[in-house]
Amino acid sequence: MSDKTAITPATHTQPPAKFSHGVRKGNILQVAGQVGFLPAVPGRTPAPAGPGLREQTLQTLANVRSVLEEGGAGWEDVMMIRVYLTDTAHFAEMNEIYNEYFADLKGAPAARTTVYVGLPAGLLIEIDALAVLD
Amino acid sequence: MSDKTAITPATHTQPPAKFSHGVRKGNILQVAGQVGFLPAVPGRTPAPAGPGLREQTLQTLANVRSVLEEGGAGWEDVMMIRVYLTDTAHFAEMNEIYNEYFADLKGAPAARTTVYVGLPAGLLIEIDALAVLD
Amino acid sequence: MSDKTAITPATHTQPPAKFSHGVRKGNILQVAGQVGFLPAVPGRTPAPAGPGLREQTLQTLANVRSVLEEGGAGWEDVMMIRVYLTDTAHFAEMNEIYNEYFADLKGAPAARTTVYVGLPAGLLIEIDALAVLD
Repeated sequence: MSDKTAITPATHTQPPAKFSHGVRKGNILQVAGQVGFLPAVPGRTPAPAGPGLREQTLQTLANVRSVLEEGGAGWEDVMMIRVYLTDTAHFAEMNEIYNEYFADLKGAPAARTTVYVGLPAGLLIEIDALAVLD
Repeated sequence: MSDKTAITPATHTQPPAKFSHGVRKGNILQVAGQVGFLPAVPGRTPAPAGPGLREQTLQTLANVRSVLEEGGAGWEDVMMIRVYLTDTAHFAEMNEIYNEYFADLKGAPAARTTVYVGLPAGLLIEIDALAVLD
Repeated sequence: MSDKTAITPATHTQPPAKFSHGVRKGNILQVAGQVGFLPAVPGRTPAPAGPGLREQTLQTLANVRSVLEEGGAGWEDVMMIRVYLTDTAHFAEMNEIYNEYFADLKGAPAARTTVYVGLPAGLLIEIDALAVLD
């Protein structure tokens, strides 16, 4: 018997294809790649929180957290965070924002891999996460 | 005692290096990055199913499925699908094909991350998957 | 109660942001993206093992292994290895080095995905790994 469940926070738009924003099965929770889209507004095209790295990074992290929390997890449970940036010049600033965001994190920070890829026009960052719950 | 086993579907060529097309240990099954190569023909260089996104995407998904099934799993068990495309202009068409392919999927669709990377010449898509079995 | 622990080999520099070089929770161990930096020297900026693919690949693999071992695991436990290269022309040489490195590996080799991305200037390869312990 499978207990695999889709996780769809109320703030999130319907995914643009047949995938879930997050999935949990047993104590494993996988968050799909999140970008800096603002909370969904019915009838409107998803829009990023802004053109800059700071607002997109903070919104992306908020979107990952929404999925974690909807699935019964939190940052403390996250094992791996994958950060996709479009520009190596953004590394230092992203790290600053990342460190501010996680300043109060309790327990061991997640592992992380950061690579530089292409993303849809206007998007500067995408993040996904793997969590293992207690 | 480890029960980690390599998964090598009969349709697949020997990997070009010391890695496995899939690995299962306990209830975790990881599928290596698959591309749109047609089933292996002894003595012939692996060839993609065609030059276009549609045939490569369908063949890639078929190759992922072969590994899942050889390992005793199916799409229903997949938690995460990573899609690597070479061109952001392919996103909409890939989603169409993806949705057709998964139209009959039962249960929660897997989470997914799509990023745009470089791939060997002629290849337009690569996909890997993480499954958690019951 | 969480048993999630950070893994920081003595050879490794402090990560440049609030993440861990590795994390273990229960039988899951995630190694963060490693690059070809030589063992840390206090007060010095991290430096790659050399400008070439061979020395960077071997050092990167050594760095992944350090994290695995510090976390109580080894290559035999690794399910998935993600290889990020900057140049498709490096695929064949990387595979040669990879095969030499894993020549004595016992048990099923890990699954692997190789994609071509951007990395910080001077770095040719990055590798992360997911292990499932017995």
